[in-house]
Amino acid sequence: MTNFKVGDFVLLYDPEKRKKLVVRLDIEKKIHTQWGVIEPKDILSVKPGSFILSHTGKKLIVFRPKLYEIIEHSRVFKYATQIVRPRDWGLIITYANIRPGMQILEIGTGSGAFTAFLSEILGQTGKIISYEINATRAQLAKRNLEIIGVPKNYEIRIGNPSEIGIPEKNFDAAFIDIPEPWDVLNAVYDSLKDGSTLVCYIPTFNQVKKTLEIAIEIGFDDFLLLDHFYREIQVNPNAIRPLLKSYVFSAFIFFARKIYKH
Amino acid sequence: MTNFKVGDFVLLYDPEKRKKLVVRLDIEKKIHTQWGVIEPKDILSVKPGSFILSHTGKKLIVFRPKLYEIIEHSRVFKYATQIVRPRDWGLIITYANIRPGMQILEIGTGSGAFTAFLSEILGQTGKIISYEINATRAQLAKRNLEIIGVPKNYEIRIGNPSEIGIPEKNFDAAFIDIPEPWDVLNAVYDSLKDGSTLVCYIPTFNQVKKTLEIAIEIGFDDFLLLDHFYREIQVNPNAIRPLLKSYVFSAFIFFARKIYKH
Amino acid sequence: MTNFKVGDFVLLYDPEKRKKLVVRLDIEKKIHTQWGVIEPKDILSVKPGSFILSHTGKKLIVFRPKLYEIIEHSRVFKYATQIVRPRDWGLIITYANIRPGMQILEIGTGSGAFTAFLSEILGQTGKIISYEINATRAQLAKRNLEIIGVPKNYEIRIGNPSEIGIPEKNFDAAFIDIPEPWDVLNAVYDSLKDGSTLVCYIPTFNQVKKTLEIAIEIGFDDFLLLDHFYREIQVNPNAIRPLLKSYVFSAFIFFARKIYKH
Amino acid sequence: MTNFKVGDFVLLYDPEKRKKLVVRLDIEKKIHTQWGVIEPKDILSVKPGSFILSHTGKKLIVFRPKLYEIIEHSRVFKYATQIVRPRDWGLIITYANIRPGMQILEIGTGSGAFTAFLSEILGQTGKIISYEINATRAQLAKRNLEIIGVPKNYEIRIGNPSEIGIPEKNFDAAFIDIPEPWDVLNAVYDSLKDGSTLVCYIPTFNQVKKTLEIAIEIGFDDFLLLDHFYREIQVNPNAIRPLLKSYVFSAFIFFARKIYKH
Repeated sequence: MTNFKVGDFVLLYDPEKRKKLVVRLDIEKKIHTQWGVIEPKDILSVKPGSFILSHTGKKLIVFRPKLYEIIEHSRVFKYATQIVRPRDWGLIITYANIRPGMQILEIGTGSGAFTAFLSEILGQTGKIISYEINATRAQLAKRNLEIIGVPKNYEIRIGNPSEIGIPEKNFDAAFIDIPEPWDVLNAVYDSLKDGSTLVCYIPTFNQVKKTLEIAIEIGFDDFLLLDHFYREIQVNPNAIRPLLKSYVFSAFIFFARKIYKH
Repeated sequence: MTNFKVGDFVLLYDPEKRKKLVVRLDIEKKIHTQWGVIEPKDILSVKPGSFILSHTGKKLIVFRPKLYEIIEHSRVFKYATQIVRPRDWGLIITYANIRPGMQILEIGTGSGAFTAFLSEILGQTGKIISYEINATRAQLAKRNLEIIGVPKNYEIRIGNPSEIGIPEKNFDAAFIDIPEPWDVLNAVYDSLKDGSTLVCYIPTFNQVKKTLEIAIEIGFDDFLLLDHFYREIQVNPNAIRPLLKSYVFSAFIFFARKIYKH
Repeated sequence: MTNFKVGDFVLLYDPEKRKKLVVRLDIEKKIHTQWGVIEPKDILSVKPGSFILSHTGKKLIVFRPKLYEIIEHSRVFKYATQIVRPRDWGLIITYANIRPGMQILEIGTGSGAFTAFLSEILGQTGKIISYEINATRAQLAKRNLEIIGVPKNYEIRIGNPSEIGIPEKNFDAAFIDIPEPWDVLNAVYDSLKDGSTLVCYIPTFNQVKKTLEIAIEIGFDDFLLLDHFYREIQVNPNAIRPLLKSYVFSAFIFFARKIYKH
Repeated sequence: MTNFKVGDFVLLYDPEKRKKLVVRLDIEKKIHTQWGVIEPKDILSVKPGSFILSHTGKKLIVFRPKLYEIIEHSRVFKYATQIVRPRDWGLIITYANIRPGMQILEIGTGSGAFTAFLSEILGQTGKIISYEINATRAQLAKRNLEIIGVPKNYEIRIGNPSEIGIPEKNFDAAFIDIPEPWDVLNAVYDSLKDGSTLVCYIPTFNQVKKTLEIAIEIGFDDFLLLDHFYREIQVNPNAIRPLLKSYVFSAFIFFARKIYKH
């Protein structure tokens, strides 16, 4: 992999404590971190995967950050809301069968974290139409997406799709992450291709129940409802065991397909 | 979504028992199923998401199958091995940051299930080099990939990469699913871009320990070791609860990055 | 441990397949099993932990069965209902602080599995009052308890405690395992000692919600609601890993304490 | 339940934040807490389950604490070590079939938390022999047990049972919680009744492997190895969902039975 250049994101990794920080390279600005000051030129002169030293002598490894690291460990990605957790991104892709080049509807842009992942997976030939009811949040998500630098295959619309409407009628899949998903299910139903997949990201059992009831009523079927989690395993080869405490819940992930009403 | 045509895969879904069967449309051949005989013309005359009837009067819904459904519910995808479970596909994509257009190394093609997913995510501009030591398995995987009809962006090589070598030196990520991953770690290290990600799919703790030890020795770091699972929730809105029995383990998923040896 | 004698329960254990069968020793009757016929005298002549042979030459180990093995692996314990799973028994004891000598109220005797465990933990100085609305079930539970031979510290009453009343007012804890726990919460509240613990065993989220709402209303607090499970690990020392499929749900376990209404 | 009296343990419960503190009633001493000062006489004048006020007007509920609350939330129980977590206590009782009146061997007294639970379950007619290699820890455990006030059915011996020996030969079950359980397995084997149960509490996979290997060699069988955990569910009836972060690992719990060597 070629060397870093000015403007690149860089992941600073402390291999001892397993801590991460994502920064952006600016030749003029020293990088102030919890490990001391780092000189941009020290990063510019090495390849990804190399060790560098902070001014205090702390050894760090520099990498090109992955998308989820920019979102979870940088100072530039701003949070307006609880995001769709990276752990759940891939499961949604797999079970909704989302692929490069598809047209995807998103309702609830939030901070734009999942929009960024979708954007990268869909590529230049794909398209995301994303609705966000809160104008400030929409603005922040746009800024987040621009800073990350994902493909320009997304359009963020401010408003409630049940009110302002969804003119497109040909989405390959829809993803909803708002507190009251049932509010938009009719509009989403109309905008999906025949037989296509709806995904809802739902924090509580109470919302699951109502979403499921309304989805059945409107004309969805082939439901799959997942309680998804993982535990991290300690990576010391002489003491392999799950970590004692883990994040073990983010949201229920609800999948359904549009059917003809009967 | 446009109607089905001859040659298409079709998912038959029994909404009552939540059972699935994927078949291929052949105008000449009646479809024999656990629900009775289905006439191809009955499917050809409706849109995805429609109800059809078997000759016994059983109501089924027809959909375009997703990749994981072709793999798990069809009569055409053949198993030579335990596959990388669909539940794990997306997590690998996310934490290895695999994107359309990338060059990916796979060691252990197996039945080709994960190769198929990778192929669809990478798209026409991407490339998979996949090694399989067993010639019969390699043949079966090729046939599986051709029948599914994924992009022709893969090359399957028969042999052990430690012996026959990996001429490419520029992979964006490597995925290993063989019983002794440590055997190929040196060859994989040399073929990866600086700082790039290695993923191993490892069934037992014993193999995790040895893989981790050798990976540390060879020059990997930033380890992430996951025990990944989900529980399915029963979708009756009046009786929402996890299913009593679930598949709750497939393999440990091991992530690491190539570093400069020190 | 002394030898087996006529009338004892015996656990036959197949160490190869890890299968279990609990039988009762009768000098007159040969024991017919999935492993062939076993002679009672072969068991009577050895100590617990010994190997015996079936008539087909199958090697089995004989043990004194534990309570949960009599319930899960015998031909004598009869099921009228889904039981409180043995995996959950101990958690209830711990978080309800149930100890030898206490007075415990049970509503929903069911097949008597948990009643049997409670009976053994409470011992001769303890007392269980157990209500069962279904007379046939109550009869079956009584027979199960007699056959197992637990201490005679239990009384099974046929009827709904909300209708027939609970004359005792001094229970150390109450355990409810019926489909509509909210129906009996008032009666249970009145029968508990000040500050004492209520436990409900609740299969679905829907029932959890209603139970919680009514419990708050009636005068309970300090709630603890658990989603309890385990995974079994394969015991081959050369291939240690979780079993692929496990029972990972039985019921939500709900704990609360009686408070003074405010 | 009768009123509190001087010398009693009292659980102070903040129903808003769900925080707990266990204190001991001393008529002379005001109770200083995170919620302000509490007057002992305010507690002495009410029944368990009543509301009291701190001097700042904070509403708290007073209860008689359960054993696990004394251990987890008091200022008097002192920790020398990681304890056997209360979540695991009951599972051990159930699968080792531990009952009032039994003789139990414990190796690794630690802080005495599980010893306290065992003591209460075994009652006056039971007996625990507990070995602790570290004299300071043994002293602290004794003090903890005395302060809690469990039945005097335990004996703590300072030393390694492999060296100082275990004269008793008739234990109903053995519980081992030390870093190298394999060291004492021979001594434990000899001290157990025929066919009786061994339980080991083992933090890492590495220790599991070695314990299992040696246990097979020495003459144990009928292994059960559990990865035990729960998730706590948020108790708001309008937002029922698992807590985002939970303690999801404590130790692997290993069960085996003594057999005749073959």
